[in-house]
Amino acid sequence: MELLKKAIMERGRAIGTDIIQVDMFLNHQIDIELLNEIGREFYRIFEKVPINKILTIEASGIGIACITAQYFHVPVVFAKKGQARNIGNNVYSCMVHSFTKNATYPVQISKDYIGPGDNLLIIDDFLANGQAILGLKDIADQAGAVISGVGIVIEKGFQGGGQLLRDKGLRVESLAIVDVIENGTFQFRE
Amino acid sequence: MELLKKAIMERGRAIGTDIIQVDMFLNHQIDIELLNEIGREFYRIFEKVPINKILTIEASGIGIACITAQYFHVPVVFAKKGQARNIGNNVYSCMVHSFTKNATYPVQISKDYIGPGDNLLIIDDFLANGQAILGLKDIADQAGAVISGVGIVIEKGFQGGGQLLRDKGLRVESLAIVDVIENGTFQFRE
Repeated sequence: MELLKKAIMERGRAIGTDIIQVDMFLNHQIDIELLNEIGREFYRIFEKVPINKILTIEASGIGIACITAQYFHVPVVFAKKGQARNIGNNVYSCMVHSFTKNATYPVQISKDYIGPGDNLLIIDDFLANGQAILGLKDIADQAGAVISGVGIVIEKGFQGGGQLLRDKGLRVESLAIVDVIENGTFQFRE
Repeated sequence: MELLKKAIMERGRAIGTDIIQVDMFLNHQIDIELLNEIGREFYRIFEKVPINKILTIEASGIGIACITAQYFHVPVVFAKKGQARNIGNNVYSCMVHSFTKNATYPVQISKDYIGPGDNLLIIDDFLANGQAILGLKDIADQAGAVISGVGIVIEKGFQGGGQLLRDKGLRVESLAIVDVIENGTFQFRE
């Protein structure tokens, strides 16, 4: 998605060889006009696939999922991180390891909002090692739901998550894949 | 907002005398069509007020803020909870006490995304004791930004937050105010 790559190049910051800082338009401050174009693009990609619910994980996936859901006219469900979030015991849960934070945390979704017959589009801002998406897949499997697709805004092509998820048969579509970060610039996959 | 009150009555659950569970359409599963009407209503209420940015706090405020921001054509900034979230040291921060969780946690916003000259509309899903909004007010004060208004989806009228914030001169507009929860039903303020 050219508009997104332009935003990453012009407004994003490359830090070292592995950090893509897009705090200024995607995951701290949010450029809503750009987010609308992102939602529209996810719809263009996945409109022919059966999808009755969009699934994401708090926190930075929620805005993208909500804006995207408008195009599909389906509800959003967001998975909650951490324990004891007033969602009761009637939950599907899994443990997710974050390499970035070097920590493992629980992820939960109420059984009321995901189940057999659901065709899910998973949406998230970043794909790096793929552990969060694997966690959502685990929960979808527990629930007997089908993952129709995975829509990612920015994939770190130099980390293993994309390959890992595609090898498991998931249809992963990333709007921008950064293959190399070097001298403060990004190289995108064509 | 009648549509919202109807959703709370028909789909929400009253638990004990102080819990309003709206997980099924607002803060776990999200009804996007309803959220759009909520965003439209916030715009109707605040459209004449100078607003160049919508401020919220992760996680459940983000979706509401993003949908609302489409009507105002302004960016969203969401405050981050907890420490060490890769936003660096260039931050405004405060401590917020949650009575519900009986815990105090730090809240941070990068100095890059809030500053003098900003006219903020604060958006959140719930107003109970008002501590989270007070925290955002503290940060706005540190940044020299003005709070033009506070838009709340559901206010617990039987807790002190609404009064506390209004006494501080904030314009707080809640789309539904629940004054009493009794025998599994909600009484709304007219």
